[in-house]
Amino acid sequence: MLSVVAQSSFERALEAAVTRYDSTAPITAMIRYHFGYAAGGCDQRGKRLRPMLLLTVAQEEGGSIESALDAACAIEILHNYSLVHDDIEDGDRVRHGRDTVWAKWGTAHGINAGDSLCAISYLALLESDVPRPAERTVAMTRALHEANLAMCAGQGRDIAFEVESQVTMDDYIAMVTGKTAALFAAACELGALAAGSDASRARAYGELGRAYGLGFQIEDDLLGTWGESAATGKPVGSDLARRKWTFPVVWALDGPASPARDVVVERYARHGPLSPDDVAATIAALDALGVRNAGMLQAQTYFDRADAVAQASAIDTGGRVRAFLAANVRRAV
Amino acid sequence: MLSVVAQSSFERALEAAVTRYDSTAPITAMIRYHFGYAAGGCDQRGKRLRPMLLLTVAQEEGGSIESALDAACAIEILHNYSLVHDDIEDGDRVRHGRDTVWAKWGTAHGINAGDSLCAISYLALLESDVPRPAERTVAMTRALHEANLAMCAGQGRDIAFEVESQVTMDDYIAMVTGKTAALFAAACELGALAAGSDASRARAYGELGRAYGLGFQIEDDLLGTWGESAATGKPVGSDLARRKWTFPVVWALDGPASPARDVVVERYARHGPLSPDDVAATIAALDALGVRNAGMLQAQTYFDRADAVAQASAIDTGGRVRAFLAANVRRAV
Repeated sequence: MLSVVAQSSFERALEAAVTRYDSTAPITAMIRYHFGYAAGGCDQRGKRLRPMLLLTVAQEEGGSIESALDAACAIEILHNYSLVHDDIEDGDRVRHGRDTVWAKWGTAHGINAGDSLCAISYLALLESDVPRPAERTVAMTRALHEANLAMCAGQGRDIAFEVESQVTMDDYIAMVTGKTAALFAAACELGALAAGSDASRARAYGELGRAYGLGFQIEDDLLGTWGESAATGKPVGSDLARRKWTFPVVWALDGPASPARDVVVERYARHGPLSPDDVAATIAALDALGVRNAGMLQAQTYFDRADAVAQASAIDTGGRVRAFLAANVRRAV
Repeated sequence: MLSVVAQSSFERALEAAVTRYDSTAPITAMIRYHFGYAAGGCDQRGKRLRPMLLLTVAQEEGGSIESALDAACAIEILHNYSLVHDDIEDGDRVRHGRDTVWAKWGTAHGINAGDSLCAISYLALLESDVPRPAERTVAMTRALHEANLAMCAGQGRDIAFEVESQVTMDDYIAMVTGKTAALFAAACELGALAAGSDASRARAYGELGRAYGLGFQIEDDLLGTWGESAATGKPVGSDLARRKWTFPVVWALDGPASPARDVVVERYARHGPLSPDDVAATIAALDALGVRNAGMLQAQTYFDRADAVAQASAIDTGGRVRAFLAANVRRAV
């Protein structure tokens, strides 16, 4: 785990990066509010998973925290741009116990505030004081734009799934690879690049992060189906109630015909949200199919893949990056 | 004016840049549709003002068209990302005679397709085949991100104006400086950087572009109030009907009290759209106040500023860039 000093250095750098473009423009207040920097503040902030992962990789590769803080800020701000837009796209009105930006200021300002955060993310890298060869800045900026495009492709698939009555496992993995895993991959790749590692080592770290991101999302989907409300912050079965295409449902429908599978098929062939009774019937059917165990096995194959990548490329030899991921990214299902 | 060969080189490069990330993701179809590359195509495309301006500056600075095509693509794609999002923010359902992306696929896909275009814009620069020192790529990418942030700040002001009952000329100029002029400035700056000019010459070109952008927007606002529908593609007085804070209205309310000013004040103190009678009364009042002439004079001061910048910095000595701007950007009011 990173030291408390490193964590507070990051928080200071993040606030400076987010508020350096402070001005009289209306977006300024929205951005400060979103990050909890507005008057009155708030204690409920994000978990900072991605920047902490980035800094952990940088340390593992022999870099200093200071030389990677700009990249850590960039990835956290890019993650927040995606949250601001996702909240509009998903119609979510509350995050961290507060109104989302669009719920407070409307859709138009919400889109625009997210766009601003996207620009500020890249400017955190491009206008940073960290001394770094220009070739490296280009490589880092490029990797972060590729991750952004992959996130959009994944999010587009997820939105499109809403009106589908069948989503294959390949579709699901393609969606999650973009929507979740791309930014974990970028965090690892940028951490290595910030530390001065060469392109092939950085890409290997990216593969390690991508594998963990996939396993993380599957565990998160299991937790969203069977987890306690206290652990997830969401009502039990809320993904099912919203008829989201999560790992359990996709896995069940991808399997051979059975009465239990028919229960799930029938519920997901409808459009619109599921009733509490339908949610309970779907969970019972998923239980009968053994989906929970199948999901844990599937997630484990991704964590094993991360180990294989590390061994093949001789990265994370001390295991510090995977220990961070296991402690902070893996979910107790 | 650029040669037909240069224009068609640009069109080929743009289609390649926009479609290189072609895949099975749903956003691909939306992006192709937006650019008119979908099956069935369309002849109604944008005017390509910004990339043609960029290429004109590059030529004026002794660069080849080929060495600036990637930057020209980047600025046109960035412009289109802003159009896709603006259409959602403004509720516009039609562009170039076709349904806008959000009108066809919904708001969620519309936001996400715009986000994708933003990423693709920067990747056109960062993954380009044009040989260029990395320092220059960083400078160009940075200038384009600064322009994006300035556009967002301007757009945020414009959205905020919708609920205001008074907008000062300073507010208006701040809005237009971001919303319109920042991308004209970036087009000029990137054109010079692509040609290998030094940073101070490139910044001077940026100032020239910014001045023209301001004059352009004022003329465009006059045209939106007094222009023929055929020239604007919009109904006469449509900006007034939507109660937009355009130059004529801001100028009138910024002036001394008078019966004609009161007519405008009274209409703009209301919320919601204006009736055709109110629009006619407002135009008559603006006529009585001499706003049209005042606007033309104000626009001219910006065109004069562009001349002064050119002379002071010894840029555009042949006048080719300003000739392009006068022919393509200035509006016959």
